[in-house]
Amino acid sequence: MQNFTYYAPTKIVFGKETEKETGALIREQGCERALIVYGGGSVKRSGLQERISASLEDAGVSHVELGGVVPNPRLSKVREGIELCRREKADFLLSVGGGSVIDTAKAISYGVPYAGDVWDFFAGKAAAQAALPMGCVLTIAAAGSEMSNSSVITNEENGLKRGYRSDLSRQRFAVLNPELTYTLPPYQTANGAVDIMMHTMERYFTSECDLLLTDALGEGLMRTVMECARTLRDDPANYAARANMMWASSLSHNGLTGCGSVEDWASHQLQHELGGMFDCSHGAGLAAVWPSWARYVIDADYTLFARFAVKVMGVVPTADERETAERGVAAAECFFRSIGMPTNIRELGYELSEAQIAELAEKCTNGRTRTVGGLKKLDYGDIVKIYEGARG
Amino acid sequence: MQNFTYYAPTKIVFGKETEKETGALIREQGCERALIVYGGGSVKRSGLQERISASLEDAGVSHVELGGVVPNPRLSKVREGIELCRREKADFLLSVGGGSVIDTAKAISYGVPYAGDVWDFFAGKAAAQAALPMGCVLTIAAAGSEMSNSSVITNEENGLKRGYRSDLSRQRFAVLNPELTYTLPPYQTANGAVDIMMHTMERYFTSECDLLLTDALGEGLMRTVMECARTLRDDPANYAARANMMWASSLSHNGLTGCGSVEDWASHQLQHELGGMFDCSHGAGLAAVWPSWARYVIDADYTLFARFAVKVMGVVPTADERETAERGVAAAECFFRSIGMPTNIRELGYELSEAQIAELAEKCTNGRTRTVGGLKKLDYGDIVKIYEGARG
Repeated sequence: MQNFTYYAPTKIVFGKETEKETGALIREQGCERALIVYGGGSVKRSGLQERISASLEDAGVSHVELGGVVPNPRLSKVREGIELCRREKADFLLSVGGGSVIDTAKAISYGVPYAGDVWDFFAGKAAAQAALPMGCVLTIAAAGSEMSNSSVITNEENGLKRGYRSDLSRQRFAVLNPELTYTLPPYQTANGAVDIMMHTMERYFTSECDLLLTDALGEGLMRTVMECARTLRDDPANYAARANMMWASSLSHNGLTGCGSVEDWASHQLQHELGGMFDCSHGAGLAAVWPSWARYVIDADYTLFARFAVKVMGVVPTADERETAERGVAAAECFFRSIGMPTNIRELGYELSEAQIAELAEKCTNGRTRTVGGLKKLDYGDIVKIYEGARG
Repeated sequence: MQNFTYYAPTKIVFGKETEKETGALIREQGCERALIVYGGGSVKRSGLQERISASLEDAGVSHVELGGVVPNPRLSKVREGIELCRREKADFLLSVGGGSVIDTAKAISYGVPYAGDVWDFFAGKAAAQAALPMGCVLTIAAAGSEMSNSSVITNEENGLKRGYRSDLSRQRFAVLNPELTYTLPPYQTANGAVDIMMHTMERYFTSECDLLLTDALGEGLMRTVMECARTLRDDPANYAARANMMWASSLSHNGLTGCGSVEDWASHQLQHELGGMFDCSHGAGLAAVWPSWARYVIDADYTLFARFAVKVMGVVPTADERETAERGVAAAECFFRSIGMPTNIRELGYELSEAQIAELAEKCTNGRTRTVGGLKKLDYGDIVKIYEGARG
């Protein structure tokens, strides 16, 4: 077990109609002028924005708005938000949306008090020293950005998708009303489920042993997500399934399921490059690369994969532990398919050429200058083979 | 599922030698003069106090000391601490110890900026508006006070043991080095294990359904604690078991295992009165009353008790769900005995008279003015019967 720091200070306000508390929560932070960041028009059409505006007004919090955040959020929108924030003298950033919106707000929060270019943080050229306070009203259970310290931004100028982590970006509060997710399209719900699963899987597949509690929590979380995802396939307005999925999204990425672990994150790196090239959905991209990753690294620790098979996937163990391990990977593919997710890149909708694989692997290893992953350190050649295995 | 707020802002610094970071952690909070609160002399004899003092000195933090905190911590010591803090102008409270020490520091932290009597908070006569910042170096895995917002103090003047909750008392940081618990006597280790189990059991036994994730996390935590407690019986310096037990102590009482639940806490109330009357160990007292409580309330929801039996205690389910439920209670007793804990008050070392039972039940129901418990609301008559059942 590794020494670890666990820090998850976000105040979670969870349940029905909790968005009505948003204004009071901002006042609690001593702030009075919010920039509301959101994506498409659905938060307006659904009436959510109106309820939130009313709550802010009741609490004496004025606001300006920044809409139009897209999945795989763009650096240009971040820059627009920084300008707007400065011009309008907003002292708080309120995200209404999912991971892309919150990640955009996080990047804006770093950028506002910074004299240089906000991309510096994502390019590894600077460390944030200050950030505007933030909170969010979550509308999709997926990225876990509502409790994480990370954000991922795509730079349209060079096609690079890069993440940056800082505790300065922890949300002061996160309003989690599961009812807000009733109307998500099934594909987005399934995408979210894979994303949540994968945030724990990236931490679960580790060479560290003796993580009894962390493993037990992760296994329970993954089983819960699978059960809820299957329920929601047929019953999208099931409160219990939406609620457990939403709470899982936060706990899966706030550090809890990685305490003591050397984490992996290779699948996320593989997917980030796919997302940068094709703008595919994050969860679907993860589902498309994970099985190939798993089969490529399985011999690094097939006992661990066998435990995953039995304790998470419900595989009945056989005398041959490696066979049990393989059945676990197949069971995960089966789960992905059962909720309409791909299990390779062809099913994701793309035919990868050799040249594209080489380009993806170059970017993934930062021009062959770094390895990727924790369970098994993967170099350029390994990454090429994993993409090849994931072609379908 | 109930709406809930989850707020656990304490920064956890976990692992070997982490006490050396204490000084820097206090400076991070902008403080420079600490009152170190501790219990007996073991923290001095072990050299721990010296290492912490050196860390404070390195960081430029001066300190004064308040020793002599005892289990079931006393109001008089709290008052002494408040005076000392004011006189010495300490701006930070550092606890080095377990729940009694941290609870004492929490009460001091409320008292320092308060003009009235600190017992007002525990007597329900006032709500804290401010508190001195606090952190702790934990030396026993048990009470979970390092991440909770509650503290329990015994008033020697009237024999009342009362708790008070406020987020103002959340520790800014908690240093968790499992090695510091190697030398605990087996009885204290077992006491801690029961306390940790019970913090989750009080939340787990609830009439709320659909808590898939919360239940899965709680079940995983309880199984982990039982496994570690058994390991430590034979191998007290087992790092993995000490580490998982210590992390479980924090997670079991920071709110995580109660999200969405209507919690119970009857067993804690029953034990608090016992502790007030006999000064018994907290964990042992809980083990002594829980089986009687469980058998008294089992028909409020024996399906729930059956799930506990199967998923936590490892009971093989039978066709008769109520029988499975009863076997779960018996299995819990068996676990308590296996680690040297009592399962009734006679085994705890006390022969309860009728008059004492009446007195305990009077105090427990605050002079018959309130009911106790969430799964089943228990009045004076119920409480008398549970104490009678727990006599042994």
